[in-house]
Amino acid sequence: MPTRIGRYTIRLDSTPSVIGFASVVGKKEGEGPLADWFDLVEEDSLFGEKTWEKAESRMQAMAFHLALQKANISRDAIDLIFAGDLLNQCIGSGYGHRGSQIPFAGLFGACSTMAESLALAAAFVDSGLAATTAAVTSSHFCTAERQFRYPLEYGGQRPPSAQWTVTGSGCTIISHAEAGPFIREITFGMINDLGISDINNMGAAMAPAAADTLLNYLHDTGANPAAFDMIVTGDLGQVGAELFVSLLKKENVLLPDNHRDCGMMIFDQLAQDVHSGGSGCGCSASVLCSAILGGVVKGSLKEVLFIATGALMSPLSVQQGETIPSIAHLIHLSSKREGQ
Amino acid sequence: MPTRIGRYTIRLDSTPSVIGFASVVGKKEGEGPLADWFDLVEEDSLFGEKTWEKAESRMQAMAFHLALQKANISRDAIDLIFAGDLLNQCIGSGYGHRGSQIPFAGLFGACSTMAESLALAAAFVDSGLAATTAAVTSSHFCTAERQFRYPLEYGGQRPPSAQWTVTGSGCTIISHAEAGPFIREITFGMINDLGISDINNMGAAMAPAAADTLLNYLHDTGANPAAFDMIVTGDLGQVGAELFVSLLKKENVLLPDNHRDCGMMIFDQLAQDVHSGGSGCGCSASVLCSAILGGVVKGSLKEVLFIATGALMSPLSVQQGETIPSIAHLIHLSSKREGQ
Repeated sequence: MPTRIGRYTIRLDSTPSVIGFASVVGKKEGEGPLADWFDLVEEDSLFGEKTWEKAESRMQAMAFHLALQKANISRDAIDLIFAGDLLNQCIGSGYGHRGSQIPFAGLFGACSTMAESLALAAAFVDSGLAATTAAVTSSHFCTAERQFRYPLEYGGQRPPSAQWTVTGSGCTIISHAEAGPFIREITFGMINDLGISDINNMGAAMAPAAADTLLNYLHDTGANPAAFDMIVTGDLGQVGAELFVSLLKKENVLLPDNHRDCGMMIFDQLAQDVHSGGSGCGCSASVLCSAILGGVVKGSLKEVLFIATGALMSPLSVQQGETIPSIAHLIHLSSKREGQ
Repeated sequence: MPTRIGRYTIRLDSTPSVIGFASVVGKKEGEGPLADWFDLVEEDSLFGEKTWEKAESRMQAMAFHLALQKANISRDAIDLIFAGDLLNQCIGSGYGHRGSQIPFAGLFGACSTMAESLALAAAFVDSGLAATTAAVTSSHFCTAERQFRYPLEYGGQRPPSAQWTVTGSGCTIISHAEAGPFIREITFGMINDLGISDINNMGAAMAPAAADTLLNYLHDTGANPAAFDMIVTGDLGQVGAELFVSLLKKENVLLPDNHRDCGMMIFDQLAQDVHSGGSGCGCSASVLCSAILGGVVKGSLKEVLFIATGALMSPLSVQQGETIPSIAHLIHLSSKREGQ
């Protein structure tokens, strides 16, 4: 049963568990620092399909099936799947789950989708709306690049603040179980827009949303940021991560060296030439569903705040002179059911 | 508190109420048969903005504010807003609620979004995840036409099976209250794809999803289709509506002349030259938030099944030779809290 705490946070009193999780990534991600954590590294950027969009759908379906396998349940056990992605009309998800025969709720949260889908999936299980749910998302470098920026063949120059869209997918299966990782609280974010209009500086556009949601969570719960082994943002990259920390400092919240960013964890920034870091729905999804949830299972992480951020603009809205609205949702993951 | 009935349906035992609803539409919709039901008919297709996309965002914000007014609550009372639309990266919603300072969950369900958002909004209230929620969506003829088909200036020919995208938005506010309309059950749909690839025949692509979800609801609850004053599909249009009825007949479910379709209700098909009828997220949204909920309030409708349908393709997926996956979600609306 859920309990609302403060204005923004929902405590999930039955503490739903992540009973299965899986990550599927591309070659470049498989050459990065998290290589050993991923369930599957696919060398072929087409995943055996004819187009990159079809490849992304297949990758999302693969992550879902692997997560089911690891949870040791059949797909019929899933009451509802929450999924979304970055592509126009979310075709990564729509086609990825076309044959699944499972009730489907489509989401659009841009790169915040892993947190949004997981929050909804956990909320449904906690409240008895569903017994078992799935949350899944993806991104693909080649589909995102040609949709949001330039044809790949063009070889456009990238400024230092630019990020590299991750080819990856992550899926979590949520239910009630004796073992964790447990989901203790969720905080849905509001849309922030501080007037950034540079599509090559998404980290700066998203940092205020991440700070805002974290401040709301800390205010609602009275939690001490030092109580968490890791406060991990979605894909702010280096530029956005620095801004995030300084925005918190302005509000007198000091993070004791426990802040990490999925966009900086997934690549070796210098060796892999990714400028400010990784991005895309698949960035926070594949990092969550590998090193983070894996760390909680192995005991190296006990208390984690996962804050995935999304930039809600489109190429057209930017062409029309609009700034970039952004959003961040938060999940408190814990190795324990109760207490800190 | 929710109770799961059968495989697909959730009974909302606390029967949340629609405490406010509002519809905003364009000039053409304001000249149709439902003219007197709409809260606001805007003659200017730009809604005072510089682009049609900004107009769509404004329209969605207007519907939300009108619904709040009619519910007689302030926006601070809203715990979570569920919103989405048809535009790439759902910019109608992202920009429409940018300044609202309300937690936001973005959805993509194409033209099923009104049912998807309302189902989630009602589920959150029933289960105590939220006290008060909002569900809102929109579409705009000019934004959809140039994104999905041709530039308006091109003046492309339209076959008889084509539908006309509605310029409209609908918003519902959900909470617990003594008076209805009440939301009794919800059924989330699965993605169907029977191989239709003609983007000018979306009704045919979506009809199987609508039939599938209705059959699941009837199977789960044991309800008799004759017990409803109206079984209303989202925007199948004339071609899709006929297919829907015949698909049900094949499964031995006969509808006793209580089937209506929002796409056929909103326009006078012949006088307004809209071929197979209206379509777009705003079609079922503006019809629900005018004649349907209005009819329940006035007592002319007592039991209604609202089944909004969505086609989950994109222009790119169709160019890549893909067929059109579709989905439908169902809401049982009632003037009474219990019994039939």
